[in-house]
This record gives sequence, C-alpha cells and structure tokens, in this order.
Amino acid sequence: MSGNTFGTLFKVTTWGESHGKALGCIIDGCPANFSLNEKQLQHEVDRRKPKTKSLISTTRKEKDKVEILSGVFEGKTLGTPISIMVENKDKRSKDYSKIKNTYRPGHADIAYDLKYGFRDYRGGGRSSGRETVSRVMAGAVAKQILSKNTKTDIFGHTVQVGDIKAKRFTRSQIEKNELRCADSSAVKDMLKLIKKVRLNEGDSIGAIIEIVIKNPPIGLGQPVFDKLDANLTKAIMSIGAIKGIEIGIGFNAASTLGSDCNDQITIKSKKVHFLSNNAGGTLGGISTGQDIVIRAAVKPVPSISKQLQSITKNHKKTKIMTLGRHDTCLAPRIIPVAEAMPVITLLDHYLIQTGYSNL
Amino acid sequence: MSGNTFGTLFKVTTWGESHGKALGCIIDGCPANFSLNEKQLQHEVDRRKPKTKSLISTTRKEKDKVEILSGVFEGKTLGTPISIMVENKDKRSKDYSKIKNTYRPGHADIAYDLKYGFRDYRGGGRSSGRETVSRVMAGAVAKQILSKNTKTDIFGHTVQVGDIKAKRFTRSQIEKNELRCADSSAVKDMLKLIKKVRLNEGDSIGAIIEIVIKNPPIGLGQPVFDKLDANLTKAIMSIGAIKGIEIGIGFNAASTLGSDCNDQITIKSKKVHFLSNNAGGTLGGISTGQDIVIRAAVKPVPSISKQLQSITKNHKKTKIMTLGRHDTCLAPRIIPVAEAMPVITLLDHYLIQTGYSNL
Amino acid sequence: MSGNTFGTLFKVTTWGESHGKALGCIIDGCPANFSLNEKQLQHEVDRRKPKTKSLISTTRKEKDKVEILSGVFEGKTLGTPISIMVENKDKRSKDYSKIKNTYRPGHADIAYDLKYGFRDYRGGGRSSGRETVSRVMAGAVAKQILSKNTKTDIFGHTVQVGDIKAKRFTRSQIEKNELRCADSSAVKDMLKLIKKVRLNEGDSIGAIIEIVIKNPPIGLGQPVFDKLDANLTKAIMSIGAIKGIEIGIGFNAASTLGSDCNDQITIKSKKVHFLSNNAGGTLGGISTGQDIVIRAAVKPVPSISKQLQSITKNHKKTKIMTLGRHDTCLAPRIIPVAEAMPVITLLDHYLIQTGYSNL
Amino acid sequence: MSGNTFGTLFKVTTWGESHGKALGCIIDGCPANFSLNEKQLQHEVDRRKPKTKSLISTTRKEKDKVEILSGVFEGKTLGTPISIMVENKDKRSKDYSKIKNTYRPGHADIAYDLKYGFRDYRGGGRSSGRETVSRVMAGAVAKQILSKNTKTDIFGHTVQVGDIKAKRFTRSQIEKNELRCADSSAVKDMLKLIKKVRLNEGDSIGAIIEIVIKNPPIGLGQPVFDKLDANLTKAIMSIGAIKGIEIGIGFNAASTLGSDCNDQITIKSKKVHFLSNNAGGTLGGISTGQDIVIRAAVKPVPSISKQLQSITKNHKKTKIMTLGRHDTCLAPRIIPVAEAMPVITLLDHYLIQTGYSNL
Repeated sequence: MSGNTFGTLFKVTTWGESHGKALGCIIDGCPANFSLNEKQLQHEVDRRKPKTKSLISTTRKEKDKVEILSGVFEGKTLGTPISIMVENKDKRSKDYSKIKNTYRPGHADIAYDLKYGFRDYRGGGRSSGRETVSRVMAGAVAKQILSKNTKTDIFGHTVQVGDIKAKRFTRSQIEKNELRCADSSAVKDMLKLIKKVRLNEGDSIGAIIEIVIKNPPIGLGQPVFDKLDANLTKAIMSIGAIKGIEIGIGFNAASTLGSDCNDQITIKSKKVHFLSNNAGGTLGGISTGQDIVIRAAVKPVPSISKQLQSITKNHKKTKIMTLGRHDTCLAPRIIPVAEAMPVITLLDHYLIQTGYSNL
Repeated sequence: MSGNTFGTLFKVTTWGESHGKALGCIIDGCPANFSLNEKQLQHEVDRRKPKTKSLISTTRKEKDKVEILSGVFEGKTLGTPISIMVENKDKRSKDYSKIKNTYRPGHADIAYDLKYGFRDYRGGGRSSGRETVSRVMAGAVAKQILSKNTKTDIFGHTVQVGDIKAKRFTRSQIEKNELRCADSSAVKDMLKLIKKVRLNEGDSIGAIIEIVIKNPPIGLGQPVFDKLDANLTKAIMSIGAIKGIEIGIGFNAASTLGSDCNDQITIKSKKVHFLSNNAGGTLGGISTGQDIVIRAAVKPVPSISKQLQSITKNHKKTKIMTLGRHDTCLAPRIIPVAEAMPVITLLDHYLIQTGYSNL
Repeated sequence: MSGNTFGTLFKVTTWGESHGKALGCIIDGCPANFSLNEKQLQHEVDRRKPKTKSLISTTRKEKDKVEILSGVFEGKTLGTPISIMVENKDKRSKDYSKIKNTYRPGHADIAYDLKYGFRDYRGGGRSSGRETVSRVMAGAVAKQILSKNTKTDIFGHTVQVGDIKAKRFTRSQIEKNELRCADSSAVKDMLKLIKKVRLNEGDSIGAIIEIVIKNPPIGLGQPVFDKLDANLTKAIMSIGAIKGIEIGIGFNAASTLGSDCNDQITIKSKKVHFLSNNAGGTLGGISTGQDIVIRAAVKPVPSISKQLQSITKNHKKTKIMTLGRHDTCLAPRIIPVAEAMPVITLLDHYLIQTGYSNL
Repeated sequence: MSGNTFGTLFKVTTWGESHGKALGCIIDGCPANFSLNEKQLQHEVDRRKPKTKSLISTTRKEKDKVEILSGVFEGKTLGTPISIMVENKDKRSKDYSKIKNTYRPGHADIAYDLKYGFRDYRGGGRSSGRETVSRVMAGAVAKQILSKNTKTDIFGHTVQVGDIKAKRFTRSQIEKNELRCADSSAVKDMLKLIKKVRLNEGDSIGAIIEIVIKNPPIGLGQPVFDKLDANLTKAIMSIGAIKGIEIGIGFNAASTLGSDCNDQITIKSKKVHFLSNNAGGTLGGISTGQDIVIRAAVKPVPSISKQLQSITKNHKKTKIMTLGRHDTCLAPRIIPVAEAMPVITLLDHYLIQTGYSNL
C-alpha cells in the first residue's frame, strides 16, 4: 500500500521504521542551483529532538545526524532528487519484545495487524512518531527555498495544555521554554500540570497548538478540491497525533452571525486591509495575503505507565502497561513537524503558481 | 490552475460555474457491470436542493434534473467515464450585476481577482456553493457501489446552530425536519433562532454538523500522508463553508489524560471490542471497524441583508449589502455534500485495497 | 477502471462512447484571462472530420459542433475547468446489432469483454476512434495558449502509405491533399494504392506519419521517468491505432556508429548549433531547442469488407465481415490527433517550468 | 523539477547521481507479508553490471552491493516503503574534470545546463546510465511479487547489432553469451563487429532489443490514456538510450493490409486462440493474454574515442574526445533495465485490477 508521497511539483517521499536501520526522505522537485544551508537543515532536525533531562519528552537519545546522499553538488541543489537520511543509532529494540503479541491501546498496533496481517512490533515501526523526522528534513529544505523567494514567515506555538490556556502572546518567548509557549506565565502552570500528570500519575496529557503563517504568497490554492486550506488541513491531519483542525474562526463559527464572521474590507495605507481575520487567510480556498492561522488538537501520548485493558494477537484478554522512554505531552515536539508540513504545502502551491524558471 | 479532480482510482472531476450553462462531473474509475439506479442518484441530488417555502434556504429554484451522458449502457456501468450533468435553468444573472466591481465580504470575490485577475461576477462562479451539486452526483454513484459491496452506512446531522446544541439522538428524526437534526426538541429552538436571525436581523448563522460512518470497511487508509482520517478531513475541508474539523475526541483531546483517551480493547461476543471511541474509527490512519465520527464547523452564509464595508475593484471604499436568494444556515444543505465527499474517499480507498476484479 | 486523465498541471479528462449521447473533455488547469478563439477550436475539430465523398474515409457524417459549457466567460478563460462537448448526431446504432455477440478481429471487442465482462457493442464504444474528438478539442485549446506564449509550431504529415514513401517535403502541400502528405507526387501513388485496396479488395492499409515540433521551448522535460520524449511517445502511443514510435534517428540507431549518431555542436550566427538532429530534439529527456521529430506507425483500419475467422461471446467459431462506414487509411485523420497529444504534453511541461503567473 | 516517480499503486521513486555517494529507490506500495528474496534481488542487480574483461562493456567496477534500509522485517515486507540503496564505490571523479566546461556530443550535458543552469559534471550525474541501477532494484522486487501471483514470464534479448540480425531463437542461449542474444550463430558476427568498432575505430554501435512478456495477466490496461501499451512504451522510452519502440507488428504495419494485420480468432483446445500476434498482446490498450512483444532501438553509446566538434559552456568552439571506461554496445546491459520497467508497469496495473487484499 502506498501513501508515502506528498505534493505535486515539490514532491516528498518518506521512508523508514522507528527501529529499522535508518529513516529518510526524497525531495523530488527541488529547484536547481539553490545554495542549501546544511547547518540550517540540521538545526530544524535538532528542534524536533527530545531535550535531555526533560520531564516532557522521552529520554531516548536521537542523534539524528543528517546525511545528504544525492541532489546537492558543491553546496548547490542539482534539480535532481535530494535524498536525505538519518541513521537509527539508539534502537534498543529489546525494550519492545514484550508487546510483540499484545496491542497497545491508543497505538496503531491493532490497525496495522488488521490491514497488513503483520507488523514491526519494535516500537510502532512506520506508525511511530519517529517517522516525522523525515517530514522535518523535507520541510527544512522547503523553508529555505520559500524564504529566499517570498517573505513567508511560519511559526508554531503551544496555546493549551490540559485546561490551561496561553493568554498572552510574546513571540520571542516561544523558543525560550520547553513547551514552545508564547505566554511565559501560562507556561509555568502548564509545566506544573505536566509534572503532576507524569510523575504522580504515570499518565500523559493533550494540548492545542497554533501554526501561524505570516505574509504568505497571495493567490495560492486551487479550487475546488485543492483549496489551500483543504491541503493545509490534510498536511497537518496526516501527523499521527492530531485529532482536529481549525482555520481562522474555526468552531466558533457555529455561534457567530454572518455580519460578525464576514471580514469587512477597507483600504489602509493605500493597501487592501481586512478589518478582521475570521477567514484565517483564505477565501474560496485561495490565500488573500492575510495571516493563515491554524489550530490543531494534539492527543495525549498513548504510551503511559498505567495498566489498561487490551487483547493479544490471538484475541485473549490481557492488560498492558507501556513502559519505556516516552513523551508526556507531544505539543512542543510536534510543532516543528506541524510547521514543516504547511511549508511543504505552500512551496508546492507556490511552484505551481510561479514555476521553476523564476526562482 | 487545476485542483478539480479528487481521488486515485475512483477519480472525480467536476466542472461548472453557478451561472454558466451547466455543471457536471466525470467519474473515472467506476467499476463496470454495475446496475446504476438513476432514481437514487436523482434522489441524492434532490436532498441537496433548497426546500420551497423555507426560512432557512434560498428560494432559488434549482431543478437539477440529472442527465447521464456517458459510461452507462442498458442500465449498467461500462467501466468507462461516467459524465453527469445538470443544466442551470434558473440563472437570473441580472441579480448580480451590482456586485460586478465590488467585493462581497466573506465571499471569494477578492481572492479570485487576486489570483486570476478576472472573475465570473454572476454569483460566485466556480466558488459558489452551487459547485457542490457535482460532488453530490459523484457521491451518489459511489454510495451505490459502496453499499453493494460493504455494509457501510453513512449519514450526517446538524448538532449545533448558534449556541443551541442537539442533546438527544434519534436517527429517524434526521430527515424529518428541515435542519436534518436528530433531536426533535432542539430543532424547534434552532428554527426559532434562525427565524429571528433572518427576519428580524437580515443576518445568517453558523452551525456544526456531524458525519457518522457506520460499519466502514476495515483496513482502509494508507500511511503516512494518505491516512484515512487525513483524506476524509481534506475531503470535507474542501467544501467551501467549512472552517474546522474534528475526528473522534477532537479538540477535547487537549484536556484529556492518556489513560482516558486511549480506547481500551477487549473481546465481546467473540469479537474485538473497543471500550470507547475517542479515536473516531481510525488508528495510525487506518480504519479499525469502529464508527468513523467527524464533526465540521459551518460558517454563517456570507450573503446577508446588512451593509458591510468593502472596496471596489479599483480600491475605492464602499458599502455593500448582498440581497438576493440565499440560505440563512447552511447546515442542512451542506450535509448531503459532507456525506458525499467521505463516500467518495472511502470507495477510493476500498478500490485500492480490493481492486476491481472482486466487485 | 480509470485512465481517462492526462497531464499534471494542464490536466485533460475525456469521456464519451462512439454511440452514446455525446463526447467531451474537461480541461483543468487552463490559465485564466486568456481570450479563447472558438472558431479556431471548431476548425481543429473540423480538420479531424471525415471528408465527404472520400475514398479514404468513412462516410459517416460527424457534425461535431463544439459546445463550451463552462470555464469561459465573456470570451475569456476563467481559470476554472473548461467543459467542452460534442453531441453524437449521426449514430445509426442499428448498423452494429449484428456484431453484438461476435468479436471483430483487430478491434478491442474481445479485450473489453475480457476486462469488463461487458461492452458497448454499438461500434466500439469507448474504444472507438471517435473518442479522439475529445483529444482534438483539448489540443486545440492547448495550441492557442502555447502559440501565444512561445514560438512553438507543430504539424503532422503522412510519410508512407503501404510501401509508397514521400520523398520530397513541401510544407504548404500538406493541407492541400486528402492524405496530408507533403509530397504532391507521392500522394498520387498513395491515393491510387488506397483506391485499389478499398474498391477492388475491400481491404484497408497502414501508414507512417511524422509529427514535427519546430521551435519548442528549451529545457522542458523532467528526468528520470518524465523525460519529454517518454511523455511525448506515451501521448502518441495512447492513440488507438499506433503500433510503433520513433524519435530522431529512431530504429536506424541500430546500424549507426556513435561518431555518426552523436549530434556535434558548434556556434553559428552566435548561437548554439547542432550539425545534425539524430537526437530528435531532446537530450537526456530535455528539449534543447532543436526540432522534435517523431514518426508513428499507423495500423490498417481493422474494419474491412472481408470475411475473417472469429468467435462468438459463447466461444463458437464463426466468420465476420465488418461492413459499415469506415476509413481505409487512418493517416490523414489521425494527424490532428497526433498533433493534439504532443501539444497538450508540451503545454503541461511548459506550465511546470514557468508556472501560471507569467502567462 | 520532478519526474523521478513512476507508477500509481506500485510507486517507485529513484534518486542518485553517477558520482554521488549512493543511488537508490523507494518502493511505495509493495504488498505486505511477502517473503522478499534478497539474493534474487542482488542477482538482478548483478545481471546489469558490466562483465569484467569485456570488449563490450565499461571496465568500471560497479560493486553494487544492495542494502535494504526499510520496509522489510524478519525477511518479510511490512507494506511500508522499501528503501534500497547501493553505494558508489568506484567513483574516480577526477576522470571527468576535463569535461567540466565542455559539452559532450550525444550526452545530456548541454540540456542540463540549459535547463538547470548548472550540472554535475562528474560523468553525467543524474543523466548517467548508472541511474538505471535503481530501476533494476525496483524491478527485481516487482518481479518476485508478480511471479508469485501470476504466471508472467518476462525476458529480453538482443535481436540486432549494427546490420547483423538474430535469425534463430533459442531461449536458453540468451544468458550464455555476452550480448544476451538468442542466436548463437549471429552472436559471433555481432561480437566481431563490436570488436572492430571498438578496437580499430574507437567507436560505438547501436542495437535493437526485444522484450517478451509471456502469459501476462489478462485485462490489464486502462483506456484511454493509460493503455497498457502506452504505459509500457513510456516505461521503456524513459530509459536514456532508447530512440524507438514497436509493439507487435510495429512499423511493418505501414505496408500491411487490414486483412493480414487483423489477428483472426478461433478456438483451440477449448481456449481462445489468435491465429497471429500482430497486435503484440493488447487490443484497445488491454492485455488479451497473448505474448506482449516489444522491440526497442538502442542508440550507440555517445562516449567514444574520437574527436568530435563541440562547444564550451562559454560558447567557444572546441573538440572533444570522451576517453574513460565506457560500453561499446549498450544492448546487453540495457536488457535488465528494459525488463525491469515493464515488470514494474505490469505489477502496477495488476494491483489496480486486483487490489492488495488478494495477494
């Protein structure tokens, strides 16, 4: 079965299992003659890695040294497929031998067995969050190209953990705390909650993240089915732990009047200016130049230190506790992934609009 | 620019503007030798039509007589592309001449001009909700094939209008009221609210709808990017008025512990049984056989009888009121569309899984 | 089963059976704001029609009045899908009732039954050459856009019928004779041969056509699988009657030395100049600006007035003679189709290279 | 620019330059739970390698040790992407420094510079024949799956070198001689010719190869654009050195009467039997079960030890002789590639027809 390729002109194919030899991506459709900054690429991959000595994240050490195997010559892209790989250094697959024949609740174990009749039981295999490292690598390349050609600026931040919501927004705060939260006050309560959930209860907790795309290119998106918002939604929903997406006003649209929801238009400093941004940056699926604002619901990590009911492969009832090295709240580590996917999507639409000969 | 094709093996291409000669779809990839029920097809298209004498919906008369132009011979599908068309009978394009040079807030007018430098000003053109008639036609064909081959049962209902939420669920109620709401009590309040919003205030109101897929085929969905939930959410987000989408637990995931969110597994009546359905029917992007449950936020209709600020094509400030024949709350009319898109998605995944030779 | 869509950005989907209500195409990905010349479109369709009172072609009257149903407004393309249709006026499906249960040798009858278990026996259905009218319509739109944006000039001509080969090339001759042959002397012998084959023997005859693309855009084609020559040859091989295809030196490559086959390069009038064109216009799958030269082998029309062995649907031996209105030599009527497919291919590659925003 | 992915359900993406770190392929869409024979995979790759001490082939040593990085666990396919790689061991990139600024006639050098403004001058980069190792790896996987599920048997052989044609066919001879020729007598003359061309003249020579697919699955191929023969043609034409393709009767169709060209049908041993195979295995683009027979023209290797006219990157006239380790006649080494591409194509069509759940 397929499904590991994303995009039309900027086409990303990813591969690799969590405990296999390596994971990687092929970027087919990268413009030629572009000076690729490998350090920047490594930096984005590092942003996704778990922090050491963290309460939130797994203590698994993911070295994730990026290796470029093709498509770049003398520092420049050739226009040919860029193959990028990270080896799996810290596998410890023995950790997982217990779960070989039992399905972990909240994991894809049972679904993979139902579909394939067979699975890689060493920690999720292809369904592991580790798969996302390939997305981040591809996104890091896309980001550099998009930045050179447009003023697009994209960032994500955590806006809710449990019931605790961020109330203030100071962008410079985001990368300063372990949760990537823009509210330095809320973050303290969030961390307290996570500590309690993890240490006292052996549990995990969900979150909401927000992705903001400032200064997107105007006119991207293709009616009818490939609306920019539809493709952005798919891009983010394809990340394992996401259970919901909102664009602009989102679910508040339900209790809003048309007269309040419609973004009125005026002229300000001789430019088109919208009086609000309930649309979240697109109209009719096409970017208008307003900020694209997306919120995504992140489910709690399914691996927890609590006994839960489950069954074996042979349909015997059992109980299972998923020990091991796991995150408590995925929000901060999912943010680089949830930034990468829209960047890939935007660059793909941008190339469709402007072609290769102008870059 | 493209984007009017959806699907891999069951491939739907739609065409048509709201005030052009006709609208239609081409279904490429329909299994051969299938007895197509044309009445059933017409019935689904009729479900999408506005009710006459309705407070909720436009009074525009959409006759929408379905015409099959190819792909069916002696009542059976040939395996060749099925071309289906409805003519635009009740155009009245003069209604729209006033808005030729002014952008209607909340509509795609400005986006189309930004992208294409040109638009069909006769009522939205391709960005009109009228486009969805083609989706419903394609979905009606898909539904018949899916029904013959699987036990899949799909339906949508309105769960919230303004702040009024449905609290009870009686499936038989859904098609009995104008709002397609399963709670016969809540529906009264919803209708009262809509009447007030429309008649007193000349305004429109948003809603939340829910789509339920019972007994979906097991094992559909393709990791990584074509997860079933990713493709289903894209399918629904590609409908014009949708601003948010949830699957299973959705945004409540944020404030939920892993131990509560994980759907525990047991054996009941010798079958795999989940103790809850927070996943909403998929794990790792693959259907497990549980109900697939999706909720979508529907924005209020942008066309209202209120003056709003806007600008002309030449960037002059102006005010605009969008008179004409419009819906007040889109929920009930969007439901057939929001059923059609998942049906198309499911059948496409089903064909990928099982091929054509088994149907 | 699918397969009725062609192209990536300029995406053409065709539909229709030879004796159904109509045939048509959807062009998704046409640039917006382009003044479409409908007369020119009709002209290309007319070029494909059989001449009346012809020895070569069917006497079936194909009126083929082009009708544009969407995507064009006030004479300009909207950027939305262009739906074009021709009705089937002169069906006479009773002609075909005899062949309902017998497979015509050389036709796709048996293949369709093997694949679909069912076929449209009224004259080939989807496998009929009549299908190509949709390709010509799409190609006619593509040609106009390509002509406006590039200096590309494409034409086809008949270079061989039976054993008679064209020896001279006078371009202005091509559209002056019924065979679209550039050699006014050879054409007389060709017509004599065709007359003999048809009238005396009730038979048909094959041919070779050549398609020349002058001044193609430079740099089109994508390694590895979407080489321009690979996509052009697929485009032409997808036309029913084609059995072979050559580009540049073609099969003569076999008996050629590298030193003769390599096109040496020099500078002439300050421009890159190749001393020969054995490559046929591409190197490594990328257009170099040289003429792209493709030859295609056209099989004799399978419908002939001769008894041939065949079998019935129930596997009884029988004999069959395919009376009716048929062509004798397909070359002249296939040329507009064999021009259309490369034009579509070139425009698609051109859009990938340059995008929509430059047109 | 993209173009490095092939296939719909069995989707192959290749990457790598001739003198980069490695080359590889990602196979996305491989059925799960299949016991992959790695030795067989290595064997197919070895068949493509140059023979040591050969007059025909390059003396470059390509070790090409296959390494599987993902998608296989405990000897079985997981259904996830299979990433396969070979390292470039024997690069010697200094050999190529001379040609850095000069275009080699017959090579893609000038085309890549025209398109990308930049190229990998170390021996062709992505346009090198070395790229085909990835195709052979993907084909070797496809072949195993196709063999397990169908009786398809595919092989290629050299039928012409220079003017010398194979006249007899003894299948067992094919892999016994260096030219993969089925006529042990003709092969002697062919080798004599090659020796003369190479040693005396420093030149290279073209060839014709034939690919035969015995017992193909019936009913593969999709009208209109994805006819099986159209897709097979593209598959083979996408191999760098191919200049022409014939299916069945091929170019001889031109001088053939319909009554001779039509394959008459009868019943033999209670089975459908065609009295000839001019169609070459497909009718209307659909496989009928007859042998699929394809012939392809292979151009002479462009790298030769002869001075040819060329120009530099700065458009100065110059002469160039392409010394180095090169093949003289590509036919025998191209055969494994020209087998691999149709196998991939057939499996892809087979999966579309039968799906994954039956394998």
